Order: sequence, then structure tokens, then C-alpha cells
Amino acid sequence: MLLGSIEAGGTKFVCAVGDENYQVKEQIQYPTTSPKETIQKSIDFFKNFPGLQAISIASFGPIEIRRDNAKYGYVTDTPKIGWPNTNFLGMLKAALDLPIYWTSDVNGSVYGEYILAQSAKKTISALTYYTIGTGVGAGTVLNGSFIGTLGHPEVGHVRLKRHPDDLNFKGICPYHGDCLEGLVAGPTFEARTGKKGKDIPLTDHVWDIMAYYVAQAALQTTLHIRPEKIVFGGGVVSEPFLKKVRHEFAALMNDYQDVGNLQDYITMPLAPNNGSATLGNFALAYREMTQSKNN
Amino acid sequence: MLLGSIEAGGTKFVCAVGDENYQVKEQIQYPTTSPKETIQKSIDFFKNFPGLQAISIASFGPIEIRRDNAKYGYVTDTPKIGWPNTNFLGMLKAALDLPIYWTSDVNGSVYGEYILAQSAKKTISALTYYTIGTGVGAGTVLNGSFIGTLGHPEVGHVRLKRHPDDLNFKGICPYHGDCLEGLVAGPTFEARTGKKGKDIPLTDHVWDIMAYYVAQAALQTTLHIRPEKIVFGGGVVSEPFLKKVRHEFAALMNDYQDVGNLQDYITMPLAPNNGSATLGNFALAYREMTQSKNN
Repeated sequence: MLLGSIEAGGTKFVCAVGDENYQVKEQIQYPTTSPKETIQKSIDFFKNFPGLQAISIASFGPIEIRRDNAKYGYVTDTPKIGWPNTNFLGMLKAALDLPIYWTSDVNGSVYGEYILAQSAKKTISALTYYTIGTGVGAGTVLNGSFIGTLGHPEVGHVRLKRHPDDLNFKGICPYHGDCLEGLVAGPTFEARTGKKGKDIPLTDHVWDIMAYYVAQAALQTTLHIRPEKIVFGGGVVSEPFLKKVRHEFAALMNDYQDVGNLQDYITMPLAPNNGSATLGNFALAYREMTQSKNN
Repeated sequence: MLLGSIEAGGTKFVCAVGDENYQVKEQIQYPTTSPKETIQKSIDFFKNFPGLQAISIASFGPIEIRRDNAKYGYVTDTPKIGWPNTNFLGMLKAALDLPIYWTSDVNGSVYGEYILAQSAKKTISALTYYTIGTGVGAGTVLNGSFIGTLGHPEVGHVRLKRHPDDLNFKGICPYHGDCLEGLVAGPTFEARTGKKGKDIPLTDHVWDIMAYYVAQAALQTTLHIRPEKIVFGGGVVSEPFLKKVRHEFAALMNDYQDVGNLQDYITMPLAPNNGSATLGNFALAYREMTQSKNN
């Protein structure tokens, strides 16, 4: 069996074909240019695999995910030039007569991590995936479904208690200033210090400030949703950084609610090499194929 | 058909029997004393109704809600004297041979509001209910089920961006100081001003500060869960106060995500006279009865 994945980012596209064990057989990646050119490249790639059964797209957004909406399958009012109001799903469906699942980029990743956590632990009822990179977002799988029926969650824009040593930093979100994304997205390092995050050692206090904010995000997710696991991915995240996050989380929680062993609760992705979204797409493509056969 | 409801609060119990249209036929209320005495009174009340089909309990907590846990049905480590480690559900089941549903107080209320919102709007996929009174809590129904499989959410303890005119107030939560509950629960009025909330006019600036925090809670719920409606109940809440909350919410959201008309999105309970939990219990009792017949 062959299943297709498009991980559609604002910077690059990763297209892959995998088998029924969700193992990648072939993969390409290329920069995100105009919608027409970028989507055509993915169509050309998938046309090499006549046995393909289904595809799943995990797309940058905002996107329209309500199936009964006229704009279902569109990238809507994104700041990415050329992309507002793009019928991404429609263009793919016109070229490829296949079941195609459509969701947000973090939902692809959270589904991949959910599948991996399930196979590791047998059953898991709820898992949240955060990406902390150029932007900040999160997705949650609850009992096999994504949270967010009206639209995908936009957790990046919640407000946080400010760190006492960071009160003068205004944040970089063009909409909200010091929301979560405005305080911890990758470019905040340069805005705060003039240096890129990769050039700042983890011993620098700015990483403690970052950990305090990311721990508050994890606390919000815990107290609103009670997942069994929160996975952090994206360019800002590393295991030594998560160690700091766990430390801040424990201080904020103050033993109020038991989430089990923090090492197992707040973790890096199980999928190696940023592979969560591709794996999630394979599983979602398989699910879409099965459901479309049953209808 | 007769259905039973226990709204078990830390201060008082409200027991009711209603019909298949969820209309109250008889209701009693009495203060919460020892577990034995308080629970026995509810048993005695229900024994007057031999035709009773099922009961639902919406209890103060923390409570254990995992059905496979040895402490399922218990009030666990509550600060309420005499009540820690009380087998509430077990005591009721030993006396009454009926299907009994067991959930948290806010879950009873959110289910009642979900039922009312559904009948008003035909279908609603997700609704959140906040209570802001002596404490602060919230429950969410998503596609007919409660969010929180490991335990009920504890939204009262998230952290918030502090209002610039409130930075010196340390908050009153014994666990976290200035978490949501520590900043907006009813007793914060006296802690801030020496006066009770009911004696402070809505024109006082302290109400703007309260609205700023409550709006952040609504924003968190929106961005984490995307419900179709957020209902606010509890002694602190009034329609003029919610008007302030909507104003602050709009400023915080800054047109980032569309939640529809704010008048319909952030609302008072539809159930009159604090009746949300009783109505929710009738509906949950009915559901429990149906499910136990099918098993």
C-alpha cells in the first residue's frame, strides 16, 4: 500500500510516499514559492506513484477546516505573499483522483506523535504537540480526534505572566505584542539580545526566561485539557531546554495536580528528524481512505 | 419517568427529582455537614421516589473520575474538613440500586448549558462553562463528552498577564498566589479593597481589573479549545460585568480569530436561578440509564 504526505510549510514543502507501516519510501523537499508552482511540484511528485491510495496535507495557515464551509481546503488570510485565499485542497483534488485529508501543520505533527505514543504505551487518550520555531502553535488529539471543530486552536496567542527580568521586552507579535508567540518564537532571541538563539549558550539567563514562558504554556494545556503527554518540537526546542521547562513547570504547578513523571509528560518528539508530520500524514491518509471506502 | 440530581457543593447540597423533560418536580437543599449525615439526607430524599430511574451527582472536589481507578467515585484530597477520601458514589450505590453518574460540579453545569444551547441552536459541538464564585473552575463539553479523561480540568490555576494597576496584589490562592482563582475569586474583593464585591459599584476600577483577567481566561479557552460558546456563572458574574469582559476580550483578541458575535459567545447561563447543574444532572442521569440498559 502507498500513502502520500504533504507537509506544507511557509518556507518549504516536504512531500513523501510511504507504506502501510508508515515507513518513508521516497521523499522530496523544495522551497515554498507561488501556490501554483509549489502545489504543481507536489502533484508531479505523486503522479510517479500510480498505486497511491490516499494523501494527507498538513498545511501552514490559517486554513479553513470546516467541511461544510465554501472555503474548506483553502489557505485563508495568511501573511505569506501570494497565498491568501488559495484553494490548496481543490487544486490537488482536480489533479489527483484520491481521498485527501486536510489539516493544519501542527495537527499533522500531533497525530504522528499520537500514533507513536500509542504504539509505545498501548493506549493514550490525549496528547498535545507544540511547535516553537519561527512561530508557535499547538495541536491536540483527544480520543482519536483533533480538538477544534470550528477551526484549529491558535495557542500561540494566549497571554502569560511576565518574567520579572523581562518586563521591558515588548514582544514581537504584530497582533498582540507579548503573547506566547511574541515572547518565545525563535526571532525573539535576536529581538532581545541581537544574537540568534543558536549562538546563545543555554547557561544564558534568557533561556530561563524562555523556559518560564513555555512552562506556563504547558501548564495552561494541562489545566484546560489534561492530556497524558505534551510534546515539544521546533527549532527552539532541545532536551536540555526541556529540562529547564520541566523545572519551571514543577514550580508553577506546586504539586497541585499530578501529571506523573515529568520526564514522560513533557518530552521531545518520538519521531526522529522532524518526521512527526510525515508519519501523522500517512496515518491520516490511511484513515481518510478507510472512511471514504465506508461511505 | 423520574430522574435524580445531586448538586454537591462545599457549602450546600441541592437534591432534586425531575421528569423526562428535565423539569424539577421536587427539590430540597441543606448545608454540607459531615459526609455521613449529608449523603444520608440525599438518600432519604430519593427513597421517597420509588419510580426513580437514575441519578447524577455533580460534586465539589477534587474527585476521582477514572472508572478504572480504585478510588473512582471518591472525593479525594479536599480541604473541606471531614471529606477527604470519602466514597461518595459508593455510599449512594450501597443504598440505592440505580445507575448513578458521577462528575464534577462544573461538569454538571456545563452539561446543563450544553443541553439548553443545543435546543436553542439545534447543534453545538463545544461549549465551556466557567464558575467564578468562592473558587474558579471550568468544564467543557466537546461533541457530547467532557474534556478531561485523566481528571477534570483545573482551569482556575493558570497564570495570567497582570494588569498594570494591580501589580502589587499578591493574589489569594494558597497554592499559587496570583493564578486565575487567586486573582478573581469572590474573596479577592475583600483582599484588595476591604469591601465585599456586592458592595463595590461596577464603576469602580477594580471591576475593570477583574474583567481583564476573566477576558484572558476566555481567550485561553478560545485559543486552546475553540468552543462555540463560553458561559459564565457564579456569584461574581452579572450581565453588566460580562459587558466589560467582552470589551477586554475584543481588545486582547485584536481581530485575530473570529468567534462570531461576542454577545452570543460570552454569555450568562441560559438556565434561570442557578439551575444549570440540576438540569445537566437530569440529562446525565438519563444518559447513564440508557447506557446501562445497553450494556
